Amino acid sequence: MATPSSSDNLMETLVSLCKRRGIIYASSEIYGGLNGFFDYGPLGSELKRNIRNAWWQDMVHRRDDIVGLESSIIMHPKVWEASGHVAGFSDPLVDCKVSKQRYRADQLFFAAVVVEGVVAGYVSALESERTTEELQESAETFKRKKALQGTLAPVVVKEFTEATPEEIAQIPSPATGNPDLTPPRSFNMMFQTNVGAMTDASSVAYLRPETAQGMFVDFKNVLDTGRVKLPFGIAQVGKSFRNEITPRNFIFRSREFEQMEMEYFIMPDADWLACHESWLTWCQDWLKSIGLPESHLSLHEHPKEKLAFYSRRTVDIMFKYPFGVQELWGIAARSDYDLQQHQKFSGVPQTWFDETTKAKVVPHVIEPAVGVDRILLAVLCAAYAEEDVKDEKGNVEKRTVLRLHPRIAPFKVAVLPLLKNKEQLVGRAKDLYTKLKRRYNVAYDDGGNIGKRYRRQDEAGTPWCVTIDFDTIEKPGDTFTLRDRDTMQQTRVTEAELFAMLNEKVDNA
Amino acid sequence: MATPSSSDNLMETLVSLCKRRGIIYASSEIYGGLNGFFDYGPLGSELKRNIRNAWWQDMVHRRDDIVGLESSIIMHPKVWEASGHVAGFSDPLVDCKVSKQRYRADQLFFAAVVVEGVVAGYVSALESERTTEELQESAETFKRKKALQGTLAPVVVKEFTEATPEEIAQIPSPATGNPDLTPPRSFNMMFQTNVGAMTDASSVAYLRPETAQGMFVDFKNVLDTGRVKLPFGIAQVGKSFRNEITPRNFIFRSREFEQMEMEYFIMPDADWLACHESWLTWCQDWLKSIGLPESHLSLHEHPKEKLAFYSRRTVDIMFKYPFGVQELWGIAARSDYDLQQHQKFSGVPQTWFDETTKAKVVPHVIEPAVGVDRILLAVLCAAYAEEDVKDEKGNVEKRTVLRLHPRIAPFKVAVLPLLKNKEQLVGRAKDLYTKLKRRYNVAYDDGGNIGKRYRRQDEAGTPWCVTIDFDTIEKPGDTFTLRDRDTMQQTRVTEAELFAMLNEKVDNA
Repeated sequence: MATPSSSDNLMETLVSLCKRRGIIYASSEIYGGLNGFFDYGPLGSELKRNIRNAWWQDMVHRRDDIVGLESSIIMHPKVWEASGHVAGFSDPLVDCKVSKQRYRADQLFFAAVVVEGVVAGYVSALESERTTEELQESAETFKRKKALQGTLAPVVVKEFTEATPEEIAQIPSPATGNPDLTPPRSFNMMFQTNVGAMTDASSVAYLRPETAQGMFVDFKNVLDTGRVKLPFGIAQVGKSFRNEITPRNFIFRSREFEQMEMEYFIMPDADWLACHESWLTWCQDWLKSIGLPESHLSLHEHPKEKLAFYSRRTVDIMFKYPFGVQELWGIAARSDYDLQQHQKFSGVPQTWFDETTKAKVVPHVIEPAVGVDRILLAVLCAAYAEEDVKDEKGNVEKRTVLRLHPRIAPFKVAVLPLLKNKEQLVGRAKDLYTKLKRRYNVAYDDGGNIGKRYRRQDEAGTPWCVTIDFDTIEKPGDTFTLRDRDTMQQTRVTEAELFAMLNEKVDNA
Repeated sequence: MATPSSSDNLMETLVSLCKRRGIIYASSEIYGGLNGFFDYGPLGSELKRNIRNAWWQDMVHRRDDIVGLESSIIMHPKVWEASGHVAGFSDPLVDCKVSKQRYRADQLFFAAVVVEGVVAGYVSALESERTTEELQESAETFKRKKALQGTLAPVVVKEFTEATPEEIAQIPSPATGNPDLTPPRSFNMMFQTNVGAMTDASSVAYLRPETAQGMFVDFKNVLDTGRVKLPFGIAQVGKSFRNEITPRNFIFRSREFEQMEMEYFIMPDADWLACHESWLTWCQDWLKSIGLPESHLSLHEHPKEKLAFYSRRTVDIMFKYPFGVQELWGIAARSDYDLQQHQKFSGVPQTWFDETTKAKVVPHVIEPAVGVDRILLAVLCAAYAEEDVKDEKGNVEKRTVLRLHPRIAPFKVAVLPLLKNKEQLVGRAKDLYTKLKRRYNVAYDDGGNIGKRYRRQDEAGTPWCVTIDFDTIEKPGDTFTLRDRDTMQQTRVTEAELFAMLNEKVDNA
């Protein structure tokens, strides 16, 4: 099995495949696009739906202890005061005064150029896989251009957030090469709007930067009406918005994205660590169940000193994307912070009555939070393969295949009549297609030779192709050729066997 | 069968049921709510998902000619210039200068008080089922208070938008009773925000007021990558936002809502009227298929003189809500207006190459557009019933039942062990519950007597209850009592029969 030679190539290849096959487009592309916004095309919208539905089915329907919620994207502004987002949900932003470029200070790095123990100047670089090397090279160039004599010390890389005012006055802007950068300032990432006919401070509202607060704000409502008892969870899938300064890595960090979050409420004296561990396991298992290979997953434990004061533990499930190992799913033990805050800001008790102790308690919470778009990108990265295969004549050709889990694949089956001008073949194919479509999303393809049609379905990730051929109409048994995407093996099946297989591998998966 | 005596009562009853059973809550309720925003609770989020999924399945999966799309909520601002929303998507707004109340001028009515053929003053009223009566009563009160002699003419009701400046100076504000109203001004209903770190005109963006423009803007991308040919449609389900001046009628007119829209592209010389008619039929059939009674549906043909210049025909499918007959699903023949506008504003050709004539053409479009929330409300209104039934002892009691279509009902089945302290009953019930949950959203209820549990499920719209009783565990055949929500008939079924019934009445419905 061959895969594209470098990681950069894989991302380029995927972005191009996504466009070409109608998986993902840049938003408003005919107007030049809008940075950080994406549209999902015919195949992409099915892929996304399937991820969403699989998560909902496993998280809500197949469990006893979790109920669903769909809260509004625009909520009362007080919600975001209570949650801390109005005061604290910000990134440090740096402007280049000349080029008007903007950078996140924590993604901008600098180093002093130290020659013979003396600081001769500064160099800067944006975050990348090669930041240190780039800074070292820039330092060498600096020394050469200034014709400085003596030994250049290895660079010591620092984040721009750590720069002193004196350093800021000398650090070159990546855009101009001159010291044109402003000190970092705090930039709130919530999109702001106004609700109602007034446009003033009284009408300010925000697009939610996370779905989680919906679960906290509706906790009491769900507790009172949802026939639940501790421990239980509230799950939600929906859009969130963050005005990222530098959206990047395709759909990995965008400004409009979709989250799947769940808040699991437990007794204050419950074994929160065991609960946290069990969710960590559940989430990893789930990712593997939809086809992400264990080899691409790892854990990142947030260091204690970097946790918010109320946070007991946060572990991220990381995925090895082509652009690096990055956060996929965060599992946080958030204590009772959010409910306490809402209790304080709203004046409405956020309590559960504990029958054993006859006391009212504010539950604690474990929160697994993941982005649909990030999962979708991980799924594509893991599923993509290029292979050398032999065609019917024994010639080696390349095939591109998306090895998507059947539950996630946009089309479950493609129905292919061997010839499109043979009425009997077409009739049987259409009949099967109609029956399958009643239950599954199914493709019908009668264009070109069978080999070419198989390749087309391979690239779309369709797990099975069913060919209606002469054996179907001429031999007894009414069987079709079933061709497996991954093994490329062909077997003969009846209609009943086909439905039974789909029932097992799609519906009950 | 008895239903609540008046329409007002039905809405009150439904709003209260929605809260009590976790169907719909006011958004941010603990902060006093946010006018025009709602959250869907555990039952409501399932109901909404089911409506969405049924529509998607019938509109996209079960058809050959329609593909899906999920475009972003925030799009390039040029999109809304091209579509006409920046210039024209506005409501006429009237302020009361004293009370600071705001009204939509087209929902505010007035009449002159004409006594003995002379205008003695003006009266005003907000839109309601009784606007004319209210104005007549106000005119009579006016005449009495001013002690005017002579005959009062019947009032001639006018919309505030038609008021002359002289009239505006005399029409009383509904809030103060004095002439404190401003002339109507145009108020754009798009929510505005800023994308990126600048907050100025260059960064202005809007929350989409409809999903439809996504289909137009991505038309060319889908055409090039979606393996489609004319005629074909692009369907989308997603949130839209309108800054309504007066949100009202619960979830009927809210500021954040969810749409299911489809753009069906046809040849410019196609029989658009036949296509429009066929979609009109399709949409009515679909509404009936999910349980809306024909008796509550009607059609409203938009008069030609009220259509936009590019519009050929618009017909609304109306539903008889408790607050009046209101628009549910609009089916519009929009000519090629939108694609032409985007072609003009973007400079990118929005054309399809016609193989027969070898010419490039800009397709025309038929657009069925419906709101998920409006369907959900219609479904609840139609499904709600109160009945007198006899309990086991023959006493008459009231039951509340939501006669939801099985495809739409939040829970498909409730599993009820006859007794919760009988291990064998509970074991068999849990086993069945686990099996059912793998495929369906299923309730488990062991609290209280069976009659009470049936009532609880009736009110949640669960079509079937399965009781595991002594016959199950003591008699051969492993059968359960299957109780039908609507007929209240009880039959005995095996597990296989139960699954076969669900397969037929839920999956294949």
